[in-house]
Amino acid sequence: MEHILHLKCLICGREYQPDEVAYVCPEHGNEGILDVVYDYGRIAPHISPASLAANRETSIWRYKPLLPVAPDTAVPPLAVGWTPLYKVDRLAIELGLAYVWVKDDGRNPTASFKDRASAMAVVKAREVSGNQVSGDQVSSVESPHHLVTLSPHHPIITTASTGNAAAALAGLCASVGQPNVIFVPASAPQAKVAQLLAFGSTVMLVDGTYDDAFDLCLQAAAEFGWYNRNTGYNPYMTEGKKTVSYEIAEQLGWQAPDVVFVSVGDGCIIGGVHKGFKDLLALGWIDRMPRLIGVQAAGSNYLAEAWAKGEDVLTKPPIKAETVADSISAGLPRDRLKAMTAVTQTNGAFITVTDEEILAAIPALAQGSGVFAEPAGAAAYAGLVKAAHEGLVQPTDQIVVINTGSGLKDVAAAMKAVQGVGVRPYLIQPKLTNVKEILKTLIL
Amino acid sequence: MEHILHLKCLICGREYQPDEVAYVCPEHGNEGILDVVYDYGRIAPHISPASLAANRETSIWRYKPLLPVAPDTAVPPLAVGWTPLYKVDRLAIELGLAYVWVKDDGRNPTASFKDRASAMAVVKAREVSGNQVSGDQVSSVESPHHLVTLSPHHPIITTASTGNAAAALAGLCASVGQPNVIFVPASAPQAKVAQLLAFGSTVMLVDGTYDDAFDLCLQAAAEFGWYNRNTGYNPYMTEGKKTVSYEIAEQLGWQAPDVVFVSVGDGCIIGGVHKGFKDLLALGWIDRMPRLIGVQAAGSNYLAEAWAKGEDVLTKPPIKAETVADSISAGLPRDRLKAMTAVTQTNGAFITVTDEEILAAIPALAQGSGVFAEPAGAAAYAGLVKAAHEGLVQPTDQIVVINTGSGLKDVAAAMKAVQGVGVRPYLIQPKLTNVKEILKTLIL
Repeated sequence: MEHILHLKCLICGREYQPDEVAYVCPEHGNEGILDVVYDYGRIAPHISPASLAANRETSIWRYKPLLPVAPDTAVPPLAVGWTPLYKVDRLAIELGLAYVWVKDDGRNPTASFKDRASAMAVVKAREVSGNQVSGDQVSSVESPHHLVTLSPHHPIITTASTGNAAAALAGLCASVGQPNVIFVPASAPQAKVAQLLAFGSTVMLVDGTYDDAFDLCLQAAAEFGWYNRNTGYNPYMTEGKKTVSYEIAEQLGWQAPDVVFVSVGDGCIIGGVHKGFKDLLALGWIDRMPRLIGVQAAGSNYLAEAWAKGEDVLTKPPIKAETVADSISAGLPRDRLKAMTAVTQTNGAFITVTDEEILAAIPALAQGSGVFAEPAGAAAYAGLVKAAHEGLVQPTDQIVVINTGSGLKDVAAAMKAVQGVGVRPYLIQPKLTNVKEILKTLIL
Repeated sequence: MEHILHLKCLICGREYQPDEVAYVCPEHGNEGILDVVYDYGRIAPHISPASLAANRETSIWRYKPLLPVAPDTAVPPLAVGWTPLYKVDRLAIELGLAYVWVKDDGRNPTASFKDRASAMAVVKAREVSGNQVSGDQVSSVESPHHLVTLSPHHPIITTASTGNAAAALAGLCASVGQPNVIFVPASAPQAKVAQLLAFGSTVMLVDGTYDDAFDLCLQAAAEFGWYNRNTGYNPYMTEGKKTVSYEIAEQLGWQAPDVVFVSVGDGCIIGGVHKGFKDLLALGWIDRMPRLIGVQAAGSNYLAEAWAKGEDVLTKPPIKAETVADSISAGLPRDRLKAMTAVTQTNGAFITVTDEEILAAIPALAQGSGVFAEPAGAAAYAGLVKAAHEGLVQPTDQIVVINTGSGLKDVAAAMKAVQGVGVRPYLIQPKLTNVKEILKTLIL
């Protein structure tokens, strides 16, 4: 993989070769998240807007030369990415805007954005197990720079997740028969747990928060030598997630939008969005960096608060997170450095939205676009609504809102959302007169 | 639309011009389902395997010249169809087979196959409202050959559904701001009802069966002049559904598989699958017709029983249908003529599977392929399992199994399915010792 120059610590800037470290900077432990730095000069001969125009691959792997994998690396079969980008003129008009698109990442195989990262995790885990056949050494928390060692035949991949990353890993693993162990908070919506079990994952329902599940997963991975897919820890997850920006730019005809709205929990998605556009700028395929707007739930606003107050996210203590948008509930955002950088370097902003605003955004988005989002996905649209009302976007801005998960992931929240706006079904006996009675009360 | 020769009654063979009738043959009322007959000679100059190879449209509309729409017809923005076809070698090996693919139609916008038909419904309704601006005449049940008349500004589309067709219509309508009224049995899974309400549909929860909801919807459509999307009634729904066969053939390199497994409720999907392959045979793009295997739930086996006993489906009375696979629960399959023809003309078969077999197929399919199906989708795979065990397919047959809906559509069934095979999550306190204790009991 000569197209990778090195992995660079976000804190100290120290550089490592990919085979020198497993996940994080040895100098900075779990906070020492690494960025994958590419040699764009080596990449450019292998991919271009012209070559992509002729490429019929409709998944993230159409961008393989830009990803941290070898050209001949096998990838899982599930078709991840290349999700639709819809221009939503009715919603734009309502908000006094001219150009709004929704990127519907609920259309991924397990119905969330996280498939982009989990596909990468499966590939990287298999690389490790292929290269490292000595199955009985294990890395440890004390020496995180040791290479992970996995059994060559049955390496286990693990992750902690509020639910979507777990389901994504479970589905991608199932597609290749890959054993995996998942740690989710016991409060995860039933749909997400059902997905995990159906896919055959070993599921640990942790009686605690996502943050508890995350810490436990790190310990277990180190103890048992499992490949660790955790967001905000494994440097390659950002590299999967960045593909969304490639797709947005390509779907807009290799134009970057002016503004991108994305909901933020751990911060890994917005970090990935940033990385994708940075790659494209470096390659000269787009001519500007969009402003990135991170939307947080008011009850899980670590980053928004830090940004507003100018706090140092390396020292700011965890908060207690609670929001209806379970996917972005994070008391200590693990990818907070990348998220903060994404917003500050792009002249962006953090916005908070209340649970009520998030729930109201579910039917608003669904009815205005045909895109049914889970709370965390709708939160991004709630952020746009707020930004439009507060003048944080210009009427002629080209704006992309990323929906990060399908509404089917959390039906209870959707029911609460429609009840919140007074919508209900009409229970009737099967007689036409009953239909007539109801129609008298309606304006259709 | 010169590429349409006529609409032909499945019972009497009488032919009508598209503007002569609304939905069904006037001579045969609700049973007089019409088939759209094309002039392939007029179609062939406009589309070919070669032109498709260069076509970057990744939706059913890539096949527009083969569909009953004008070339310049506007279509709803949601990206319907062009769903993945996965080769599932691990499952094939388990079953003693060599070539098995899963067509994952759970990847459609509202997560079911029915989006293919609902997209067509929205297009056809808008055609009608555009052509017929006299908004206050209504058609009636007594004169079904009258053209439907809709308000030009707010035509209403209606359908009855076990849930998926409704969600599909709701989503497609929402994508273009199209009012709609939906009739579903009150027993529909909550996820499907939540989708409808989020999309802003007017939802009538009918205290009765799907068959009751269907009859009520027909009455209401006639009474109020609504455009009627009902499957097994509106001739164009088959034309949307047939696109799945185009995709299968194209994804296999313009080869028809030997056998296709598809679950059957009303029979419209299998009718559509048949129509698609018939079109391709007529065009000479494939050289054989696959055997079509209709899989019914044992508790909703109208067609399987009629087929096994050689009964006439025009006179066979309704049965009482009850199955965990709500999407294929139909006491009187509305498209029974097309379904029966699809099986008999292709040397196919009907197979029944029990609710237990259907539920067991959910984790089996998910773990073997990464495709998480709702019960009706998993039923098709359960049918393949049964067929393989009973020698109804040959080891070297090329076999496609269509998953018609996402498992997220019915999470309760998925939970029941995994519990049925003894799978459960492990509820633990966030301590590594707890993880160790559990791992001792597992083989990963």
